Amino acid sequence: METVFSKFETVKYEGPSSENALAYQYYDAERVVLGKPLKDHLRFAVAYWHSLAMNGSDPFGGPTIERPWMGAGDPIAQAKVKADAAFELFRVLDLPFFCFHDADVAPAGDTLAEGLKNLHVIADYFAEKMETSSTKLLWGTANLFSHPRFMAGASTNPDPDVFAWCAATVKNCMDVTKKLGGSNYVLWGGREGYETLLNTNMKQELEQMGRFLTLVVEYKHTIGFEGQILIEPKPKEPTSHQYDFDAATVYGFLKRFGLENEVKLNLEANHATLAGHSFEHEIATAGSLGVLGSLDINRGDALLGWDTDQFPNDLWTMTMSMYHVIKAGGLGKGGCNFDAKVRRQSFTAEDMIHAHVGGVDICTRAFLTAAKLIEDGRYDALLTERYAGWSKPDAAAMLSGKMSLDEIAAKALADGINPKPRSGKQEQIENLLMRAIYSAKL
Amino acid sequence: METVFSKFETVKYEGPSSENALAYQYYDAERVVLGKPLKDHLRFAVAYWHSLAMNGSDPFGGPTIERPWMGAGDPIAQAKVKADAAFELFRVLDLPFFCFHDADVAPAGDTLAEGLKNLHVIADYFAEKMETSSTKLLWGTANLFSHPRFMAGASTNPDPDVFAWCAATVKNCMDVTKKLGGSNYVLWGGREGYETLLNTNMKQELEQMGRFLTLVVEYKHTIGFEGQILIEPKPKEPTSHQYDFDAATVYGFLKRFGLENEVKLNLEANHATLAGHSFEHEIATAGSLGVLGSLDINRGDALLGWDTDQFPNDLWTMTMSMYHVIKAGGLGKGGCNFDAKVRRQSFTAEDMIHAHVGGVDICTRAFLTAAKLIEDGRYDALLTERYAGWSKPDAAAMLSGKMSLDEIAAKALADGINPKPRSGKQEQIENLLMRAIYSAKL
Amino acid sequence: METVFSKFETVKYEGPSSENALAYQYYDAERVVLGKPLKDHLRFAVAYWHSLAMNGSDPFGGPTIERPWMGAGDPIAQAKVKADAAFELFRVLDLPFFCFHDADVAPAGDTLAEGLKNLHVIADYFAEKMETSSTKLLWGTANLFSHPRFMAGASTNPDPDVFAWCAATVKNCMDVTKKLGGSNYVLWGGREGYETLLNTNMKQELEQMGRFLTLVVEYKHTIGFEGQILIEPKPKEPTSHQYDFDAATVYGFLKRFGLENEVKLNLEANHATLAGHSFEHEIATAGSLGVLGSLDINRGDALLGWDTDQFPNDLWTMTMSMYHVIKAGGLGKGGCNFDAKVRRQSFTAEDMIHAHVGGVDICTRAFLTAAKLIEDGRYDALLTERYAGWSKPDAAAMLSGKMSLDEIAAKALADGINPKPRSGKQEQIENLLMRAIYSAKL
Amino acid sequence: METVFSKFETVKYEGPSSENALAYQYYDAERVVLGKPLKDHLRFAVAYWHSLAMNGSDPFGGPTIERPWMGAGDPIAQAKVKADAAFELFRVLDLPFFCFHDADVAPAGDTLAEGLKNLHVIADYFAEKMETSSTKLLWGTANLFSHPRFMAGASTNPDPDVFAWCAATVKNCMDVTKKLGGSNYVLWGGREGYETLLNTNMKQELEQMGRFLTLVVEYKHTIGFEGQILIEPKPKEPTSHQYDFDAATVYGFLKRFGLENEVKLNLEANHATLAGHSFEHEIATAGSLGVLGSLDINRGDALLGWDTDQFPNDLWTMTMSMYHVIKAGGLGKGGCNFDAKVRRQSFTAEDMIHAHVGGVDICTRAFLTAAKLIEDGRYDALLTERYAGWSKPDAAAMLSGKMSLDEIAAKALADGINPKPRSGKQEQIENLLMRAIYSAKL
Ligand SMILES: [Co+2]
Ligand SMILES: [Co+2]
Ligand SMILES: [Co+2]
Ligand SMILES: [Co+2]
Ligand SMILES: [Co+2]
Ligand SMILES: [Co+2]
Ligand SMILES: [Co+2]
Ligand SMILES: [Co+2]
Repeated sequence: METVFSKFETVKYEGPSSENALAYQYYDAERVVLGKPLKDHLRFAVAYWHSLAMNGSDPFGGPTIERPWMGAGDPIAQAKVKADAAFELFRVLDLPFFCFHDADVAPAGDTLAEGLKNLHVIADYFAEKMETSSTKLLWGTANLFSHPRFMAGASTNPDPDVFAWCAATVKNCMDVTKKLGGSNYVLWGGREGYETLLNTNMKQELEQMGRFLTLVVEYKHTIGFEGQILIEPKPKEPTSHQYDFDAATVYGFLKRFGLENEVKLNLEANHATLAGHSFEHEIATAGSLGVLGSLDINRGDALLGWDTDQFPNDLWTMTMSMYHVIKAGGLGKGGCNFDAKVRRQSFTAEDMIHAHVGGVDICTRAFLTAAKLIEDGRYDALLTERYAGWSKPDAAAMLSGKMSLDEIAAKALADGINPKPRSGKQEQIENLLMRAIYSAKL
Repeated sequence: METVFSKFETVKYEGPSSENALAYQYYDAERVVLGKPLKDHLRFAVAYWHSLAMNGSDPFGGPTIERPWMGAGDPIAQAKVKADAAFELFRVLDLPFFCFHDADVAPAGDTLAEGLKNLHVIADYFAEKMETSSTKLLWGTANLFSHPRFMAGASTNPDPDVFAWCAATVKNCMDVTKKLGGSNYVLWGGREGYETLLNTNMKQELEQMGRFLTLVVEYKHTIGFEGQILIEPKPKEPTSHQYDFDAATVYGFLKRFGLENEVKLNLEANHATLAGHSFEHEIATAGSLGVLGSLDINRGDALLGWDTDQFPNDLWTMTMSMYHVIKAGGLGKGGCNFDAKVRRQSFTAEDMIHAHVGGVDICTRAFLTAAKLIEDGRYDALLTERYAGWSKPDAAAMLSGKMSLDEIAAKALADGINPKPRSGKQEQIENLLMRAIYSAKL
Repeated sequence: METVFSKFETVKYEGPSSENALAYQYYDAERVVLGKPLKDHLRFAVAYWHSLAMNGSDPFGGPTIERPWMGAGDPIAQAKVKADAAFELFRVLDLPFFCFHDADVAPAGDTLAEGLKNLHVIADYFAEKMETSSTKLLWGTANLFSHPRFMAGASTNPDPDVFAWCAATVKNCMDVTKKLGGSNYVLWGGREGYETLLNTNMKQELEQMGRFLTLVVEYKHTIGFEGQILIEPKPKEPTSHQYDFDAATVYGFLKRFGLENEVKLNLEANHATLAGHSFEHEIATAGSLGVLGSLDINRGDALLGWDTDQFPNDLWTMTMSMYHVIKAGGLGKGGCNFDAKVRRQSFTAEDMIHAHVGGVDICTRAFLTAAKLIEDGRYDALLTERYAGWSKPDAAAMLSGKMSLDEIAAKALADGINPKPRSGKQEQIENLLMRAIYSAKL
Repeated sequence: METVFSKFETVKYEGPSSENALAYQYYDAERVVLGKPLKDHLRFAVAYWHSLAMNGSDPFGGPTIERPWMGAGDPIAQAKVKADAAFELFRVLDLPFFCFHDADVAPAGDTLAEGLKNLHVIADYFAEKMETSSTKLLWGTANLFSHPRFMAGASTNPDPDVFAWCAATVKNCMDVTKKLGGSNYVLWGGREGYETLLNTNMKQELEQMGRFLTLVVEYKHTIGFEGQILIEPKPKEPTSHQYDFDAATVYGFLKRFGLENEVKLNLEANHATLAGHSFEHEIATAGSLGVLGSLDINRGDALLGWDTDQFPNDLWTMTMSMYHVIKAGGLGKGGCNFDAKVRRQSFTAEDMIHAHVGGVDICTRAFLTAAKLIEDGRYDALLTERYAGWSKPDAAAMLSGKMSLDEIAAKALADGINPKPRSGKQEQIENLLMRAIYSAKL
């Protein structure tokens, strides 16, 4: 069936000297780096919502993007037209994964039962299409924030019926994700927080949220879903405050409910900046706490205060992010999901292809540079040298708990220590990285 | 001995109709509210650093505040002149507590040993003065951020000798705090973070920081110090990122190192806003996690990106903050420390008195309003009503873990639930609060 | 005809001790202050868009507010149902003015001609209703940002046909505003800026915008419209950068095109904060430049980076804003328009009434306090005293241009000047203002 | 005389493949691009304050950078030691210009007369050194913000004596700048604004500031100084609000006082971001208004709210900035001044060299890329095509003022216009730029 993406040829790798705007200059999926092909490191995914369902509206203006499946018609039939276009887009981009919310793919229906039934109908249609597609499911998730019933929260809603509705929805989304061979199941708590603290019982709501996540983890084991459960932190928007503020906050929440070995994080670049962090900070934090799961690739605008979800073009940030991913042992079952949307004025199907080509290439170049940086070793050597003092026996004794505070104090006085300043070498390191990152020799 | 504060009479409570700018309109220390005197609820403290040591310099300009003890002279003698002035200021303000860093009160000396000796000399001088003063010690702390040796961190320094230096310093500061009858011991990690992630091993540094805090807690028990150990969160400044980012982050850190029952939080208003939170949010968060310890009272400027540490004048925020303090069970051993500084142009001793009078009164009025709000009951009733559904047996069963995800889902489908929207009543609640907060009937 | 607002009684002034949540405690419209009734100082207006057309959707969720006129039906008939409800709301609130965009009140139609025709049809319906209503038109304006044709700008669009469309639209909106006796005509350039500088010819676009405003001013004189032309600054959102960034920027734009005596500013509180300014700063700036026109009353959330357009509850800001309004000579033909929307969860008609009652009262109390502050005189005296040196002859000579730089330099050296610091008294002034603002004696 | 910089060899151009960290990879001063050598396009300058006078202190910590000239000693002698080191640093970096404030180079003295005399003594010493140095003066300026006398403003001070002091100082700084052959004279109003609006008469202060600038311009003509007068905008810090907020604001100020043809702008990257703008935005704005003068090269940290003044490493921003510089006709008498400081931990002399080498290279690479982008033509062609409609006669007639609003409206209706959306192509353009900017083929 002809879709808006059918006319585009599959995007190919043509190398850095290609003049073809719709070719990859860096993403050679089969190129082996650090022991495995790029496609297995990066595990790129297309996001169903931004690529198929987003219509270009913003708080001050209506839709600018019109697609055949957005008009009137039988909802299930339209959902299938959308699915056909989606798989054509996957074919054009030749990426190994996609991601979706229930609300992106299936009509809501008039009742809970009808909505869930619709979800399974479309999931079966997906399953059928996936038999002949090379694109797999990176993760599924439930949209528990768009419908008015979620306006005061999903699992944290003051109304327990909303909690129950969410339970039923997530159960079915998990079932569907398992059925489609998904590698992960994600929870983003878009309304799990407050619009105003003035009408909120935070203690009660956090208890509800902890219980809900516990139920999800238990259900995963009940059905034998082997994917990873992921939480996506975001500090605010649409709420004024979202409980899953950032990586460190979610870690504390997981620890509180004893779930730190069951749940990992899906980190989004723009959510990092909204929380006052760099993307690489969030990745390094999750890495240091053992909870790095997957990435939502996009970028924000540092001068704007909302989630712009732009396609990435910031090579520095992306390279350092990939560096910390590698240092954390890679993404495992996770991947790089383009949670990025074309701008409102970029309403053509071609704009959608351009956007992904640029995003794939910048991530790939970043990864190649990070890998080369590690193989080169000079940068890591600077870091190792900086902390070298801690590998000496006396220092190790302090850190391992063999000495008490007063013992350390007594020794310090006895030794007459007088630590001398050492340069942090920030500019030298930045220059080393500038030369590496902005070099095109990869 | 004559000091710059000697000429001021002790500030008295004169009631809301007083026209005396140097009188309290609301702070009637002995007034009993919610079962005890205001002074025992609020436990106001004067901060030694901002009130005695701050000289008005900023990144673009030199000192504007000159005090006799800041000039040349024998360091110990000058430290005593400063102490004399401090206790005169306490006398003028008639507040029950003060707080200090080692560096505020005693000369650094040329060696570790000398600096610690100086600290004990001044502590003894304090002890002597406190015999005739009604002002007690709310908390002591160590300044582990101003000297160049701390430029790359204190306990998180790449150099283990700096860690040892900090251990010796904190041990002695804790000893002195205990000796002076301090109610708490505070740690603020001003350089515990990074200037750039590029030269930082975050995992290593967090291990160091966890070890250090563990040592501190163990030492507290060793010496039988009955005060509370407190951490003061701040997200950044002077570093680009401080590990103790906010209340939720510190809670996660405490959980990770098993210290959540040993350490509480000292929350500062301006640090909350720098982290992207309201002060009341941080208090409510700490309250809901059981780690509310003490407050650093001040305010930031929402249009500026640094820690302005201004004296408070925002009645709304302060009232809601006090509301959450009361809801959390009060401040216990903590108090309200004025971590606030007069503006650079407010260099007179009189400015210092005005600043505190305004700060004390706004906090007191806020507390009185919060207490009245709770006694009135209408506001709490609105909140209780909002979550009333959760007290029903079926809802309680979901929350208590008696039902699994699929059981809840099955019941939701069987019941054919269809939760209906209810107004969040934000504007109604804001109006109720406006009338309460801006009313002068207290 | 029965509307959603018909069941509410007209809100009455009942004084500060009223316990009626739907009564004004401060807004006694006929109370004479500073020589004229409050209603003539404040000239409150209801905004048609937020009160009648806003449906509660946000970037992550659909509509929550359903009104009878939002459903299917004949567009003109529905527009009249909406108008009936609007005038009922005006009746309930008993405020003297309203404001509207063309798109709020009349269906867009399929062509330019049809849309303009619809506008006149509804304007005639308004005219009819206004015969029996006490609510007048504060200002009219054109919505040149919501339709996709404006996605790349209105008068600044790369496509000249969009410029022409805007010209036709504004001409008719001005005609209608004049016909309805509007006091002002407003331009807000919601898309007059850029989403990305990368595809933008700023110089060209600024020329277009200057030409457009010149055409508007000329047309005003052509038709003899006696209202004031106003520009509403906003720095960003929906665009990344809006050319009418803030008061100072718009002043420069007006000067550049020689329109500074023809156009004044409509200042919005939330737009001020988005630009990094306080509301009072923008008012004082416009006042000092002679271009203060009118106010859009609302408030932002200092912790969020978008235009929340909340109803105001910040007494301090509002009081100082009113102080600067009075100092600038008042609002003249302008007024206080509630460009404020109820929160998404506040979907009931009653929420809408509560919101306005709170907003009216906080503005009124602010105005009463500001007037009292001026009448009291102590605050102004502090300011006058601070600049008193400039009234001396030698100082006046420097300022009036009678001395050259080298003459002033020579005199300074000859006099051996050595200016001494004087306290800025910020805390004293803040205390004075706290006592005044938070006093309920008005 | 041996200085801390003497041991370093002069940094040389060695090309992109150089492995020498202290060599330029891109800055080949004599390379001719767009018709003239790079050194004449970029006109790099070393900033005396950050490179010679900055000591590493921050609001929470003391000095970390110790240089021989910072210790005790005869002030004039020490100033000469500092000057010797400065010229050695210029020799090492081999850059064509430097910049200074009076306070950076000469001791303040005890009186106005003495300070001015000291300035001339050091200026004479500079003149002598410049005879044998290839480094010239890009600009001079007066520090009217660090001394306590300026705490309430310089020309905007409530005390007219401070205004007079500033006049005497600026007169002499201009004399010295002329004597040393400076290309520009800069004014940065670090305290020209307010710490709080509460104690400020903005109207009065703006009058003072306008008068002062007028005096400066007149004096320039009096003495026949042929350099350019420049204002450096900054929105805040150290003040809460600085009157020279950004490029658009300063333009309005210049227009108000009729100085728009006499004064241009010195734009700083970090000041742009503090004002909520990109650096390229400020450059494009100044370019479109005809007031682009010179650049202060550095970068801020988008996650921090203060002026970090870091050395640049952001190739994208710098390239687009250079693109807009070229489009505006270049920098003329201006240049690229490194108003950038090494980090507090980078206290060695070698860090200072590294920092400049990186900064010089990133700017040069940016300029080379921008020039190549323009020569390539594809990017400009996309822009030209976007606005092509405006070159048609009917469109030109609208823009030139030949048609009135109602004539345009009538024609639009007669033509039945219905403008169709066209893609803004943002992602395509970003991809084109990514390939250009991150390419190393220059
Ligand atoms: Co995401
Ligand atoms: Co996002
Ligand atoms: Co504090
Ligand atoms: Co602080
Ligand atoms: Co508005
Ligand atoms: Co707004
Ligand atoms: Co600068
Ligand atoms: Co700067």
